[in-house]
Amino acid sequence: MTDARPTPIILDCDPGVDDAIAIIMALGLPDAIHLRAITCVAGNVPLSSTARNARQILELAGRTDIPVHGGCTRPIMSPTGRTSSAHGTDGLGGVRLPEPALQLQPEHAADAIRRIARETPGGITLCAIGPLTNVALALLRDPALADHVRRIVLMGGACFGPGNITPLAEFNFYADPHAAQIVFDAGVPIVLFGLDVTRKALLSEGYSAALATSSDQRREAIGRMLGAYESRDPCLHDPCVIAWLADPDLFELIEAHVEISLADGVASGQSVTRVRDRHLEGRKPNCRVAVDVDNAALERMLSDCIAALDAPAGTVM
Amino acid sequence: MTDARPTPIILDCDPGVDDAIAIIMALGLPDAIHLRAITCVAGNVPLSSTARNARQILELAGRTDIPVHGGCTRPIMSPTGRTSSAHGTDGLGGVRLPEPALQLQPEHAADAIRRIARETPGGITLCAIGPLTNVALALLRDPALADHVRRIVLMGGACFGPGNITPLAEFNFYADPHAAQIVFDAGVPIVLFGLDVTRKALLSEGYSAALATSSDQRREAIGRMLGAYESRDPCLHDPCVIAWLADPDLFELIEAHVEISLADGVASGQSVTRVRDRHLEGRKPNCRVAVDVDNAALERMLSDCIAALDAPAGTVM
Amino acid sequence: MTDARPTPIILDCDPGVDDAIAIIMALGLPDAIHLRAITCVAGNVPLSSTARNARQILELAGRTDIPVHGGCTRPIMSPTGRTSSAHGTDGLGGVRLPEPALQLQPEHAADAIRRIARETPGGITLCAIGPLTNVALALLRDPALADHVRRIVLMGGACFGPGNITPLAEFNFYADPHAAQIVFDAGVPIVLFGLDVTRKALLSEGYSAALATSSDQRREAIGRMLGAYESRDPCLHDPCVIAWLADPDLFELIEAHVEISLADGVASGQSVTRVRDRHLEGRKPNCRVAVDVDNAALERMLSDCIAALDAPAGTVM
Amino acid sequence: MTDARPTPIILDCDPGVDDAIAIIMALGLPDAIHLRAITCVAGNVPLSSTARNARQILELAGRTDIPVHGGCTRPIMSPTGRTSSAHGTDGLGGVRLPEPALQLQPEHAADAIRRIARETPGGITLCAIGPLTNVALALLRDPALADHVRRIVLMGGACFGPGNITPLAEFNFYADPHAAQIVFDAGVPIVLFGLDVTRKALLSEGYSAALATSSDQRREAIGRMLGAYESRDPCLHDPCVIAWLADPDLFELIEAHVEISLADGVASGQSVTRVRDRHLEGRKPNCRVAVDVDNAALERMLSDCIAALDAPAGTVM
Repeated sequence: MTDARPTPIILDCDPGVDDAIAIIMALGLPDAIHLRAITCVAGNVPLSSTARNARQILELAGRTDIPVHGGCTRPIMSPTGRTSSAHGTDGLGGVRLPEPALQLQPEHAADAIRRIARETPGGITLCAIGPLTNVALALLRDPALADHVRRIVLMGGACFGPGNITPLAEFNFYADPHAAQIVFDAGVPIVLFGLDVTRKALLSEGYSAALATSSDQRREAIGRMLGAYESRDPCLHDPCVIAWLADPDLFELIEAHVEISLADGVASGQSVTRVRDRHLEGRKPNCRVAVDVDNAALERMLSDCIAALDAPAGTVM
Repeated sequence: MTDARPTPIILDCDPGVDDAIAIIMALGLPDAIHLRAITCVAGNVPLSSTARNARQILELAGRTDIPVHGGCTRPIMSPTGRTSSAHGTDGLGGVRLPEPALQLQPEHAADAIRRIARETPGGITLCAIGPLTNVALALLRDPALADHVRRIVLMGGACFGPGNITPLAEFNFYADPHAAQIVFDAGVPIVLFGLDVTRKALLSEGYSAALATSSDQRREAIGRMLGAYESRDPCLHDPCVIAWLADPDLFELIEAHVEISLADGVASGQSVTRVRDRHLEGRKPNCRVAVDVDNAALERMLSDCIAALDAPAGTVM
Repeated sequence: MTDARPTPIILDCDPGVDDAIAIIMALGLPDAIHLRAITCVAGNVPLSSTARNARQILELAGRTDIPVHGGCTRPIMSPTGRTSSAHGTDGLGGVRLPEPALQLQPEHAADAIRRIARETPGGITLCAIGPLTNVALALLRDPALADHVRRIVLMGGACFGPGNITPLAEFNFYADPHAAQIVFDAGVPIVLFGLDVTRKALLSEGYSAALATSSDQRREAIGRMLGAYESRDPCLHDPCVIAWLADPDLFELIEAHVEISLADGVASGQSVTRVRDRHLEGRKPNCRVAVDVDNAALERMLSDCIAALDAPAGTVM
Repeated sequence: MTDARPTPIILDCDPGVDDAIAIIMALGLPDAIHLRAITCVAGNVPLSSTARNARQILELAGRTDIPVHGGCTRPIMSPTGRTSSAHGTDGLGGVRLPEPALQLQPEHAADAIRRIARETPGGITLCAIGPLTNVALALLRDPALADHVRRIVLMGGACFGPGNITPLAEFNFYADPHAAQIVFDAGVPIVLFGLDVTRKALLSEGYSAALATSSDQRREAIGRMLGAYESRDPCLHDPCVIAWLADPDLFELIEAHVEISLADGVASGQSVTRVRDRHLEGRKPNCRVAVDVDNAALERMLSDCIAALDAPAGTVM
């Protein structure tokens, strides 16, 4: 990736501690990634919290130049929505950061995705690490948008094993299964990081504790967030998406056809994954699914990104 | 309704012959109805056809002052969509009208619905006589829109008897069941004209034939459209919506709770209707459902509306 | 039917007031119907009650020569089962009849159906007016049984309108939808009396009251049962099955393809009915569905059957 | 197990090569297992084939004293049934064994299960290694049968990973999901060997080839069957059931709540498995699920069982 230009991305997220880490990584890999905007969606916590948390993380990182857009407050088919308890009630594991001075952009996330995608030569890379409502809404409003999206790299699903929020479903797909299916139907290249791989993306013992005792305020806050999160869910789900963009060699991927169960009941949001010919029955694979990760390398990349926070914002990019 | 101001409406439609008649009625009852805009959706025929047909009908009626907006090309959950054969391949029963000079507005139907609703004091009345994709998309993009919608009057569903497009489902709900459910979940007052009543909305024998032999070009075209349509489906489905706005006394309504089946298979799009307490099980009614119509009065109203076409456009409103 | 021999039938039932009336009619039309056995199933009330009620009705009718078999205590897929409140907690509308001296046969209903069908030259006619569990179990145990069943005449379903126990389902099909589908898959000729026709099978005003004041003990008990039932459900559902066997001309039937919804939720037990070619999509009709009844004639037939009770049992057959 | 009496079992199966191996193991462990009867069901191949194959294997093993009963020819809800291609068209991998002289018992498998269970002091252990139709039918016909079944040990399902016949379902549960759910609802202790463990139950390389070159006719036939099967599916699915009965220490089991998906479509027959408290939501575990196996010990046990075939039948038990 030495001579390549950084990939322009939008990060659609619902921070969330592991989303916060993904933001920090997206900022800390400027040679690989150009973060054009953060778009927020209801998910782990309500939109008001995810949109605040995203700005708090940007301020913590000293990167208030990144525009943040609020988006959908609810899933496509549920007027009320569903949240998760894994991130604390505020979404950042109870780590209290200052109220952000950075303002939300007036533009809706779905509109921002459409505009930026069309402004980006060669197409935008959408990194989606929350429920897919914003992305789906953008695609519904503008079907030709698919031509301006180079790739969607997303965290969601559980292709070959149990779910987390339910026995069969991972949270992001469960939270808005219809949005997820709309995205998989869009004809855009998809790279999928589901629980199959993110369950293997574990920090080594003591990693967060070491950070939490740092005298550096940023490191200490990140360490405390990770520590609070770890006690409930030790996996770096969302950072995998950013890590793959920066270094695809960290992951092993296979081709598959994924559809998301829209059924009521326990199957809601399940990733139905077909790999073998007898299961594909003529379907073409519609995504690549990550199945393994070089965990030590992932942790080194995270450490480098945290270190990169120390550099003045102006010099990073 | 003598001293009341006309009700401002948006007519969301997929013309379609009975949509065309509804447009003509919406124009022909200026004391009762102020048609602010026509928004088009894919349905009976593709969007390109419905958006053309709407403009052809406005030109036939001499009302090119009405803005027409194109909207969704496909249902929420189906990238391809479903059409019906009841309206001919062009949607107007094979009656060839001149290519319209009237241009489509650049604004997307869902955005127009949002803007006009917010501009209308007291809220807009949405008359929706096609699949509900445009309305649903507007509501998804802007949940607070519900506060600016006075009422949704819609043609769709089969509450107490068989469907038409499938054994259980009426076409509009079948074509986009998810959009229909989003609309019923929006908390807006709904009046529903389903097959239960529209199957009773029949023109008397010879009505369309008499029109078709008129020397007046408009009457003759309307008569031919109705004649072509009648041979496949003799019911004035969509005009019921407009007729009720002009004179609610023509219809008998009952309160009910309606949900739309999102299941795959034969139940897709079925209207699950609860009226009796033992079926409501604590649910509150979420709409009023028309169950009967004064058919002769409906036909007289249609005749009056066709007659009103003769008046110069400038004098109508 | 003058010179024809009476049709040998098994009456599979869950009495139930209207079942009780059906039993009385099956006994009161000896020229048309030869009641070989009564088989009982859990349904309106638990099996222990239906099996007792059937014997009480036989004793009331003076026909303790008819064997009664107990059968399934639960539906195919539900270990607990579902009951209805329309028949009182005892199933006979609170009319207390003496504990029966007549004993249940030791043979299980499903086994009795199999044995009698095979013993009956030309095949048995199964009259099934409760949940279809016994009949389905007999067919599962012995697929070749279908060759020994001349016809299944059954009360169940709601083909063209709302259900009763749920918005979409009639009680018998709802109580055991899997059994119903097994029966419809069996390849046996089926005549179906659903709510579409049985809702029209109403006794004239004062009919039951007049019976209830009779000095004759049998008439009085029947009148009181009908009166108690009427206040909750005024329709002679089950007797239609017997009436059609005795005089098919009382009913109008159409051909249809019926399948029973096995979905969870509100559609459970719904009769999905296809009549029009566009809905059949190549399926062959699998039953005839009653859509209308000569109500006055049905009531006369019932009166005649009640009168026939007066004749000594020995002379009836 | 030294001083314990052998466990009386019925082996309900659909041979099938791995069923054949299970039969051989059930015969080869007389200190642990007393095989009372083999009951056959349609599954891998039609009933006519499974009932023949079972008798051929008994004759190969010299154990024509074991009664064999034919049972259900079709799943509960499918008049036609579904077969698998993994066992060759005959079910024994194309290995031609002589037509059996041993006759089928006249008693239906479901009736035999009921009778033998009630005759067995302490209750029978049902080993079910095919679709569960026979067992379900016995339970439907006689709900109190559960009191006479000590335990059901079964091969079926895929609790924590992909299916085989479909992306989500294992063959036995897919072939008759309704029967499987009836069994899990019966309140009998269940030990479940699904793909989670049977995929780990692999013979070491060269094992079947070595057998196939044996000069002993029995060994050679077993080796050829295993070899033909191995090329399509190398797992000893069904033998795990027998191996666990003989030596539970070979397996690791966990408690879980399993239900079987009765939905149409791709989820049909999926094992929905709840282990964690947040997934159980108050449900009690309804079975123990095997998750690991000592593969080398399993293979040694198989070798011992094959060796035991050499002993004259009369001496084995």
